[in-house]
Amino acid sequence: MFHTDPPEPADPGRPSVDVTAAARWLDGQVLRTPLLRSPVIDRLVGARVLLKAENLQTGGSYKMRGGLYAVGRLAAAGHTGVVAQSTGNHAVAVALAARRHDMAATVVLPVDATPSKVARARGAGARVVLVGSTVEERLAVARRISDETGHPIVDAYDHPDVISGQGSASLEMIEDAERAGTPLDTLIVPVGGGGGVAGACLAASDRPIDVYGVEPVGCDSLAHSLVAGRPTPVRPAPTIADGLRPSCVGELPFDILRTRLRGVVRVDDEEIAAAFRLLLMELKVLAEPSGAAGLAGALCLAADGATRVVAGTAAPGSGSRPRTVGVVLTGGNVEADLVARLATPVLPRQGVAA
Amino acid sequence: MFHTDPPEPADPGRPSVDVTAAARWLDGQVLRTPLLRSPVIDRLVGARVLLKAENLQTGGSYKMRGGLYAVGRLAAAGHTGVVAQSTGNHAVAVALAARRHDMAATVVLPVDATPSKVARARGAGARVVLVGSTVEERLAVARRISDETGHPIVDAYDHPDVISGQGSASLEMIEDAERAGTPLDTLIVPVGGGGGVAGACLAASDRPIDVYGVEPVGCDSLAHSLVAGRPTPVRPAPTIADGLRPSCVGELPFDILRTRLRGVVRVDDEEIAAAFRLLLMELKVLAEPSGAAGLAGALCLAADGATRVVAGTAAPGSGSRPRTVGVVLTGGNVEADLVARLATPVLPRQGVAA
Repeated sequence: MFHTDPPEPADPGRPSVDVTAAARWLDGQVLRTPLLRSPVIDRLVGARVLLKAENLQTGGSYKMRGGLYAVGRLAAAGHTGVVAQSTGNHAVAVALAARRHDMAATVVLPVDATPSKVARARGAGARVVLVGSTVEERLAVARRISDETGHPIVDAYDHPDVISGQGSASLEMIEDAERAGTPLDTLIVPVGGGGGVAGACLAASDRPIDVYGVEPVGCDSLAHSLVAGRPTPVRPAPTIADGLRPSCVGELPFDILRTRLRGVVRVDDEEIAAAFRLLLMELKVLAEPSGAAGLAGALCLAADGATRVVAGTAAPGSGSRPRTVGVVLTGGNVEADLVARLATPVLPRQGVAA
Repeated sequence: MFHTDPPEPADPGRPSVDVTAAARWLDGQVLRTPLLRSPVIDRLVGARVLLKAENLQTGGSYKMRGGLYAVGRLAAAGHTGVVAQSTGNHAVAVALAARRHDMAATVVLPVDATPSKVARARGAGARVVLVGSTVEERLAVARRISDETGHPIVDAYDHPDVISGQGSASLEMIEDAERAGTPLDTLIVPVGGGGGVAGACLAASDRPIDVYGVEPVGCDSLAHSLVAGRPTPVRPAPTIADGLRPSCVGELPFDILRTRLRGVVRVDDEEIAAAFRLLLMELKVLAEPSGAAGLAGALCLAADGATRVVAGTAAPGSGSRPRTVGVVLTGGNVEADLVARLATPVLPRQGVAA
C-alpha cells in the first residue's frame, strides 16, 4: 500500500515543520477531498466560499493527515507502538494510522468523549483509556503509559509532524483553488490546540492570504495567548464543539501563529449550529460542530468585519473585502442525537442540561 | 459561461437517446461529482461500494443533468420558454436551466410538494403552479400552459434528452471507476419514472455491468411493467421517497429497460431510512430518501441475493458475487424536520400519520 518511504524523523532537538513535505508524503495515503460550494453560502458570505470537505476524509476528520504522517515517520524509525491523548479525532487518527503500520496504539480520551469517536478508535484496534475531563489528566496518564511501554507520545498539536500533516489540507485547498483560477485571499480554520491553523499559516506563507482562526466563546486560549504574548490557558467553557476544548494552545503552534495569524474570530454555539445547518441543508454534508466552526467564523467576519477579530496581526478596519474564502471543514464525527437536535432551526428545550 | 454549442435538436419523430453526447455537452456545465466510499458500507454490502454523490450536484440532484441538456437544446432551437411538471427535483432543474439560458419557466408541482423544492424552483425565478397530487392532474395543467404559451414541455422522464442527461451521471461513474482501476460490475439506480435508470443502462451498454433499478414497495410500476411487457400504472403507496412516486414508468424509458435491465429491487421505508442514516453518519453526506433508495437496494441485494429481484432479465440465482458496486446517490433535497426524524435509529411515534 505504501509506495513512498517517509523521510527520516526530524532531529528531536530542532523540530522541523514542513507542510510541503507532509503533503508530498500523504499524497495517495489520504483522500484529496473535494472543494464544495453552495450559492446560498456564497450569498451569505458575500464572496466565493470554497469548503474543503475533510469530513469526507478517511477517519472522518483532517486529523488523519497529522496522525498518518507522524505515525508513519515513527514506524520508519523502528517504533512498534504509539500513545496519544485527545478529545477524540486525533485519537481515532492515530489508531487508524497505527493499524496501517501494524503498530500497537494506546489512546487516552476524556470520560465524556463522544461515543462514536471512542467506538471508532476501538474499531481501529486501539486500546482506549478513558480518564478525567482535562488535558492535564490525560497527559499524565499518556506519559505513564509511554514510560511503561517505551512507545512515544504523538501529541495532538504540539508536534511538528502533526502540524505539517494537518497543514496539508490547507495546502491542497490553496493549490486546487489556484488551479481552478480562483486563488484564495482568505483562509479560515477552527482552533483547538492550534495545530491545524498553524499548518494553514505555513501552507499559506509566500502567498497573499489572510489566515484566521476560529475559537468557541470561552474556549479562546489562542486569543488570550496572542494578547499575552505567550501560551495562556483558559478554563474551557461548555460548547457543542467538543473538538475545540483544549485548555491551552500548543507551544509550537503558538510560535508559528504569533507573527503569522491575521486574527481570531470567536463564535458561540448558536452561530456554530447555524453553520452546521447550512452545511447540512445547503451543502448536503454532515460536519461535526467543531468542523462547522470555520464556516461560522466566515459568516461572522462577513457580517461584522474586522470588529469581530479579537486578536492577531490585523489592524482594525484593515483588509479589503475578501473575494475567495477558503474554509477547512475539519471533521464530521458527530452523534445521531446531536444531528437530530441541530437539524431543525430552533434547539428544542431539553429536560436535562446540554 | 457556455463554451460548447449544444448539438442540433433531435428529429422529434425519431427520439435519439445518446448518453455520450449528453456527457460531452454537460462537461463543465455540471459538477463532476465525486465517488465516495465508506469502509462500513463496504463491509455491509460485502463489496467495494462507490457512491456517486449527485446530492452535491448543482440544484441538489442529478435531475440538473437532464434539465440542463434538454433546456439547452431547446434554447439552441430558438425557444424562449419551457414548461415542466414533476414531484420536485426535475422542476428545480428545469427552473435553474431556464435561468441559465434566460428563458421563462413554468413548473407544475403537486400541492404536497416538498416545501424546499418549491422554494428552490421559485428561487430560480420559475413560475410555480401547485396542482392536485397525481401526475395526470399535473400533466393536464402543463399541457394547457404549453398550449397557451407555446413553450414546449420538458417531460421529467419520457424525453430522450432528459434520459441522456441523467445517464451522464452513470457514465461519469463508470469512467471514473475504470480510471481508478476498480471497474463496476453492478450499477444500482433508484427508479421514479425510469429516466435515470434507462440512461444508466445505455451508459453501461458494451460493458459487463448488471444494472438494477430500485423502487419503493407499492410504487413499483417498473416491476409491474416488466412483468406485463408494457408500461403499467400503479396507485402509488405512501413512501418517504417522494421523488419515486410516479404512477407509471415512462414509455421511452420502458422501451430501453425491457431488454437491458437486470432486475428491480423493492425497498420499504425502513430500509430507505437505514440507508439514509448510513449515508449521513458514515459517509457524512445528506441524501433525500429517494436518493438513499439506491443504497437501500444494494444492501437488500447483498443480504438476500437474487431472491430479492422481482422482475427483469436476471435468472434466479444467476450472477456471481459483485466486487464493485456503483450506486447513484441521486439527490439531497430534503426537509430539516425529516432529517431530524430519520437521523436517529428509531422513528419516533408520530401524533399524526406520516
